[in-house]
Parts: sequence; structure tokens; C-alpha cells
Amino acid sequence: MSNSPLSPRLADALTAVSQDVNAELDRLMPVSEGAESRVQDAMRYASLDGGKRLRPFLVMQSASLFNVAETAAIRVACAIEMIHCYSLVHDDLPCMDDDDLRRGRPTCHKKYDEATALLAGDSLLTKAFEVLANPATHSDPQVRCDLVAELAHASGAQGMVGGQMIDLQAQNLDLDLAGITRLQQLKTGRLFSFSCEAGAVMGKAHGELRLALRNYAHDLGLAFQIADDILDVEGDAAEVGKRLQKDADAGKATFVSLLGLERARSQADMLAEQACRHLDPFGDKADLMRDVARFVVQRRS
Amino acid sequence: MSNSPLSPRLADALTAVSQDVNAELDRLMPVSEGAESRVQDAMRYASLDGGKRLRPFLVMQSASLFNVAETAAIRVACAIEMIHCYSLVHDDLPCMDDDDLRRGRPTCHKKYDEATALLAGDSLLTKAFEVLANPATHSDPQVRCDLVAELAHASGAQGMVGGQMIDLQAQNLDLDLAGITRLQQLKTGRLFSFSCEAGAVMGKAHGELRLALRNYAHDLGLAFQIADDILDVEGDAAEVGKRLQKDADAGKATFVSLLGLERARSQADMLAEQACRHLDPFGDKADLMRDVARFVVQRRS
Repeated sequence: MSNSPLSPRLADALTAVSQDVNAELDRLMPVSEGAESRVQDAMRYASLDGGKRLRPFLVMQSASLFNVAETAAIRVACAIEMIHCYSLVHDDLPCMDDDDLRRGRPTCHKKYDEATALLAGDSLLTKAFEVLANPATHSDPQVRCDLVAELAHASGAQGMVGGQMIDLQAQNLDLDLAGITRLQQLKTGRLFSFSCEAGAVMGKAHGELRLALRNYAHDLGLAFQIADDILDVEGDAAEVGKRLQKDADAGKATFVSLLGLERARSQADMLAEQACRHLDPFGDKADLMRDVARFVVQRRS
Repeated sequence: MSNSPLSPRLADALTAVSQDVNAELDRLMPVSEGAESRVQDAMRYASLDGGKRLRPFLVMQSASLFNVAETAAIRVACAIEMIHCYSLVHDDLPCMDDDDLRRGRPTCHKKYDEATALLAGDSLLTKAFEVLANPATHSDPQVRCDLVAELAHASGAQGMVGGQMIDLQAQNLDLDLAGITRLQQLKTGRLFSFSCEAGAVMGKAHGELRLALRNYAHDLGLAFQIADDILDVEGDAAEVGKRLQKDADAGKATFVSLLGLERARSQADMLAEQACRHLDPFGDKADLMRDVARFVVQRRS
């Protein structure tokens, strides 16, 4: 990977987490003998072996800040990835974004069919909560309840799904910068926040350390989204692995359309640096999370 | 309601639970100011003021057997109804059953649009777990985790969604009686079981009493489904409030097609009586649950 914006240590760490997440997802989603195996296959297709696993990585990193056992944290990492993957499967459906390509492969409804993809999304969403509630995720049931409640809040109608609802209406809403920012905070920011705070929840850390992670997540999520809008204009579809310029084609405002390319890029860089500074209380232990912030604004896919 | 199969006491009790469930759902699902309110409206449309509320009723009845506080049980009742309603919204979508009518009103995607209905289903599903994990549902977080894990298991790929997956392929599977029975146990039986066992979970009752409720739920669910197949042949669409004879039109096996109308009817009656006998350990306290079993095989909608 020449000229990669990935530092070698981040590249290694992301690869390690990806492998661990794949192995754990594989264990968590066995395939039955009966005819219901079709939906289980589709769940696996939609979640195994794909994506950068950024959210799981953030879970694992935030958990390491509080010395949470990896065997527990990996389950939370898988739960957030199940939610992320379900949202992609449903987003890709014809009644939503109608996409044929995801991570360089046919989307779930193209590989199977619409009904199976709908059900695969539903059951990935459901499975995430089953995983969190299981004693293997944390010995303290109060912590497990907190994880369930916070993931549900982050991903429901007042979080990610609410953001998707706004996004669907964005052509008609004539959103300004504050409107786009709020949309993105709901649609992608809330899951980033959950991922970054999950370690604090598992480590029962409240107060300033948790707030520091929340602030980091806030700036990281926004930087990620601005970078996404930049990629949507400048990226290479083959490299990014999905159709580009959808928002512009649909006449939706984006950070790039509102700020222009140069200001969008400097804003993303500024947010990434600001995100890093929020991690000061953690010292060197948070270096990989700082690398993530710099990576998300420099990535090419 | 002349000639109603509802005993007066069951009619009164169902009405009371319906009112309580509507009031609680209304409280649990407020509408925001922003553009995300559209999905919140759709969630409310899909879940308020409709249906017999059979599953919530079973939750409230089983909770009363163990003297669980109604303020707690009503939240579990709402959670199961959110799951049931999400499944109806997604089931009605064009890529699934493609239905225009539900409970005598336009289906959610007809009232709004497909994308909004998809998201409304997703967020109803998500909200159910948020409600269960909240301390107001039970003072013991272990019980709340058990409720989350069991509802997820009952409604996911190894439960309700798995049953829907089999149902989608039923035309090609040439199911026999055992196959249809398993399909229905997954598709509708698992949620009935959760509803009936929820009281035991909240009351921390294990062993024989919980097993008795599980057995009741098993027979009740099967009786319910056979009665549904009978209604599908004999019912009046206006009274039932949805399109009928879908399965027969689609060439799918049903209990009626496999058993014939007479044997199906006697089988349903036998199962209802057997369900009642499982409730013997609870004495008079379970009389309304016995009324439910008799009602489901005699209902006309």
C-alpha cells in the first residue's frame, strides 16, 4: 500500500481487529439446517469479510483504555457492526438508495432478493441486542442493560434511523450547514459515539473520561462525513467500492456543496486535529485512536 | 357484539389492556420537532389504536400470575407489541406480501411510502429493546437482560424472522404437516411463548410454573394459527380487515389444505382445551388465559 494514509501500526491494528471481528461474527451467526438458513446466509454475506471495521476498531480501542477484556469487547464490537451492516442492507434496497454495489460486491438484495435482504437486515439488528444482553458480554447485567439501551437509542428513530429519515427528505428540505451537520450527527455520528463510549461503559468510567471520548467521537464523526462528501466528488468508484456522486445527482446539499472543496478539506483536517486533542487525558494509550482520526480525513475509500 | 365468541369478562379485560397499551405506547413514542418526525409518525400509525393486542394481553395476564407490578408489565407488553407491529409493517411491503390493507386501514407504506415504512419497522424493532433495557421495566438488571435476550431470540433468524424466511419459500418447499407446524411455531409461536413466559421471567419463576406457561403458549399458538388458516378460507374480508386466501392463491400448504376444514377445526378446538389444562397449577387466577384460548379458535377476525 504505497502512499497509503494508513500508518503501518494502524494498518496492522485494523487488520487484526478485522480478523477478530470476522472470527467472532462467524461464531455468533451459525447457519441452521432448515429453510431459514437462507436468511442466515444473507446475514453472513452482509456482515462477514467486508468493510474497514472502523466502528469495531473504535470499540476495541476505547475498551483497551479501560483495560476491558478483549473477549468481552469483541462482542460489543460485533454488535455495533451488525447494526452498521443492517443499516447498509436496508439503505441499499430499491425503495431507499437502490444500489447494486457495496464494498465492491453485489448488494444483499442483488445477491439474494429484496425480501431476503429485508429479513437479513431485521435479524442482524435483532441479533445485535441478543449479543449485548448475553452474560459473555459483561459480568455486570447493569452494564449490559446500559449497552442495550444506548445502542438502541443511538440507532433508532432519535438516532441513526432518524438521520436516514431526514436524508430521504433532504432534497426538499434545503438544508443549511447546521441542518446537514445535524443530519450527519444522527445518521452516522451516533454510532461513532456509541463505539467510542462503549469502552467507558464497559469500564464503568463516567465523568471526564467518558466526556472526552464523546467529544472525540463528535469531531471524528463529522470529519468522517465531510471526508465522505469529498470522496463522493473526488473518489474513484472502483476504489471506493460503491456508486459515487449520488447526493449531488439527487440535488442534495453536502458539506462540499455548502463549503466548497477547499474549505471542506480544511474543516475536516481541523476537526481531526481537534478530535486528537480530546484524547489528551489518555496519553500514549490513545495513539491508535489519533491515527484513526488522521486516517479518516485522508482515506481514499 | 351479539353472538360474540368473547366472554364478557374477556371482552372487558381486552379492552382495558388495549387502552393501557395505547396510552403507554403514546408515552414511549413521542414525536420530535425535526424532519425525523415523519418516521416517528409512521411508528405511531403502525402501532397505536390497532389490533386485538393479544400478545400484550398475555404478557399482562402472565405477569399477574406472579404479582408483577402492572406499571412494569405494561412496558414489556408494549415491547412485544412493537415487535409484532414492526413485523406486520415489513410483511406488508411490496417485496414481501404486498398488502394494501391492514386492520381495515391503509398499510404503513400506503399511508406514507415504502422507505418510511421500512424505517418505521426498523425503529419499532429497535425501540422494543430500548424499552426492555430501561430500569423502569424491572428493578433487577439481570431480569431486563433476560427479557432482551429472550425477545431477541424469539424474534430473530432462529425465531419469527426465520419463520418468515421459510414462509417466503413455502410454495417451493412442499411442506407437510410437520413442516407447516415448525414454520408456524417460528413465525408466530415464538412471540406467543415470549408473551406467556414474560410474567415468569419478571416474577423470577423457573421450573414447573414456567414450563406450564410454555406448554400453554405452544398449544395456544398452534390453535391460533390453525384458526387463522380457517378464517383465511371462511372469513369475511371486511370483518377480518385484511386480504384473505393469500396462501391458497399462492399455492402454499396450510393446515386447512393439509387437514381439511373439519379436522382443522377439531384440531384447533383440541389444542385450545389442552392449552387450558396446562394452566391447572394456577387455578382460577388463569381463567382469563383460558378464555383467550377458547376465543382464538372461535374468533371471526
